[in-house]
Amino acid sequence: MIKTDILIIGAGPTGLFTVFEAGLLKLKCHLIDALPQAGGQCTELYPKKPIYDIPAYPEILAGDLTLKLLEQCKQFEPGFTLGERAETIEKQEDGSFIVTTNKGTQHQAPVVAIAGGLGSFEPRKPLIDNLAHFEDKGVEYMIKDPEIYRDKKVVIAGGGDSALDWSIFLSNIASEVTLIHRRNEFRGHLDSVEKVQELKNQGKINLITPAEVIGLVGHNKLQAVVVSQPTQIETEYEIECDHFIPLFGLSPKLGPIADWGLEIEKNAIKVDNCLDYQTNIPGIFAIGDVNTYPGKLKLILCGFHEATLMCQSAYKIINPGKRYVLKYTTVAGVDGFDGSRKEAPKAVVKAFD
Amino acid sequence: MIKTDILIIGAGPTGLFTVFEAGLLKLKCHLIDALPQAGGQCTELYPKKPIYDIPAYPEILAGDLTLKLLEQCKQFEPGFTLGERAETIEKQEDGSFIVTTNKGTQHQAPVVAIAGGLGSFEPRKPLIDNLAHFEDKGVEYMIKDPEIYRDKKVVIAGGGDSALDWSIFLSNIASEVTLIHRRNEFRGHLDSVEKVQELKNQGKINLITPAEVIGLVGHNKLQAVVVSQPTQIETEYEIECDHFIPLFGLSPKLGPIADWGLEIEKNAIKVDNCLDYQTNIPGIFAIGDVNTYPGKLKLILCGFHEATLMCQSAYKIINPGKRYVLKYTTVAGVDGFDGSRKEAPKAVVKAFD
Repeated sequence: MIKTDILIIGAGPTGLFTVFEAGLLKLKCHLIDALPQAGGQCTELYPKKPIYDIPAYPEILAGDLTLKLLEQCKQFEPGFTLGERAETIEKQEDGSFIVTTNKGTQHQAPVVAIAGGLGSFEPRKPLIDNLAHFEDKGVEYMIKDPEIYRDKKVVIAGGGDSALDWSIFLSNIASEVTLIHRRNEFRGHLDSVEKVQELKNQGKINLITPAEVIGLVGHNKLQAVVVSQPTQIETEYEIECDHFIPLFGLSPKLGPIADWGLEIEKNAIKVDNCLDYQTNIPGIFAIGDVNTYPGKLKLILCGFHEATLMCQSAYKIINPGKRYVLKYTTVAGVDGFDGSRKEAPKAVVKAFD
Repeated sequence: MIKTDILIIGAGPTGLFTVFEAGLLKLKCHLIDALPQAGGQCTELYPKKPIYDIPAYPEILAGDLTLKLLEQCKQFEPGFTLGERAETIEKQEDGSFIVTTNKGTQHQAPVVAIAGGLGSFEPRKPLIDNLAHFEDKGVEYMIKDPEIYRDKKVVIAGGGDSALDWSIFLSNIASEVTLIHRRNEFRGHLDSVEKVQELKNQGKINLITPAEVIGLVGHNKLQAVVVSQPTQIETEYEIECDHFIPLFGLSPKLGPIADWGLEIEKNAIKVDNCLDYQTNIPGIFAIGDVNTYPGKLKLILCGFHEATLMCQSAYKIINPGKRYVLKYTTVAGVDGFDGSRKEAPKAVVKAFD
């Protein structure tokens, strides 16, 4: 059982900044995220895209924002449970909560802060009738271990960076790689596009466009995909393969949190914005894009503010009766849990002779 | 008459970020500040002090924060009325407001955002009975034009950087400079302290410590100060001088805004934090350290959030009936009023041969 002061669901920008603000109040945090790394959609979906509305950053790449936030909070030594999705929550007699992930990892804390962004990111699936039947029997939506594709025949579908980059990568591992996209154009980095072109010329990648996978063939295991290619004389045909990997991006889903008994409105969690962004369940807060209230804007800078105010109420729950007086970091410095200390250089005090 | 969409009182971090957020909504801003430059207390009081709790900045000097915010908002071409204090506000029949400064400059806008920080900074004054009698007759609290001290006898009081730096500067202009401080120790930058020591050794600065100016002598003009120096045999004596400049720092005062009919609580302006940080007077908002509400924290990051939400309501006041849909800067880019455009680099789209 992992125990902490504030259990944060979601390791995106808002979750990471919560660690810093909680740390200033001497509260420890642990973060759970379904993605395999911190940063939320900034890191997963658009690490190389610039954001222009982070205060005092005329421009910052989303990936760099994550790195800065990780650096800012690191002295408060957050714990991480990554690649696991928070599934269930149970209130204990002592008022604390136990949150269990899809892999069974248990976490206990007196305060839970849901900073889940738009939800956990689920792969977008193609509309193929018997798709579910072949899941984990030849159909995968994410590539976790490339080795399972060694000397296999692989069909990848998609037209973005993931489809291009995995086609390149697997061309060295699989016995055959086919990349299928419904348009002739691909949206991806120039070097990826050029590399795929080169591998196509070398006969290492079969490229089929404009085309779509419209059916799956096999019994207990995938044996072939049915391809529709309207520009050919034979518009429908089968391609033998061991694996079909549709890479159509990720789409956010609130997921299991929707069943935690929280008041939900428009796929977001209702909170008390007049005080501390607490949900209808005392001790559970929702901050950042995952919450809603009158006038809500789904902006990162709003998540920072919500996290900061939330930590004040968390402090009162965790330290009942104790009073916290705001100290400015410029005046009081920052004491890390790792023994580090940051402080403004002292002004020189000197007497004259 | 200066006309704008949002008239911002206070050019500190919150006021500057308001320009950016308003600009995203195509609203123009003009800022009034009593200080001669933008940046508020960050620039005036502690430009070289690091702040540790600006999100995604593990450390940033207060002066650099101002520079970044100025850079971020510059494409929205804010107007500035600096070195003037907003004195009076009058509501017009068309619903707009006219704000007049202490120098008579008039500004008109449908929305006023008070981002006044802790208030306008007024000099701290020593407790001397007839001090007010000599104001502008030999007593000054700020040095505006050093030339008025040429070939005059000047007494400076104070123990910080201002007192040290002006003593150094005026030692080349005035016929006599006396620096008086109530302690033997001075708090200031090492190089300033060393320079004063050097000038003292050269006889260019008279240094009297520990001592205090306790009285002023003269008729229509200052002629001498009365000094109390307990360590001397003669504990009280007069020093002839033309000017007495007490440099005891600045202290924030809400100032004339306190008389604008706004609801005030604990020297701050009450606002509706459940929606848009509007005051009890529709069309007047208060954001940043100047406002108060349940759970308020006087932090710069909170001002950023308040400014952003406030701009949404300002948009509705200025464009009644028109609906604004939030666009992400990462997706939509930023169009400056100066014709500039910032946008995420487009993904490469290329068909394969």
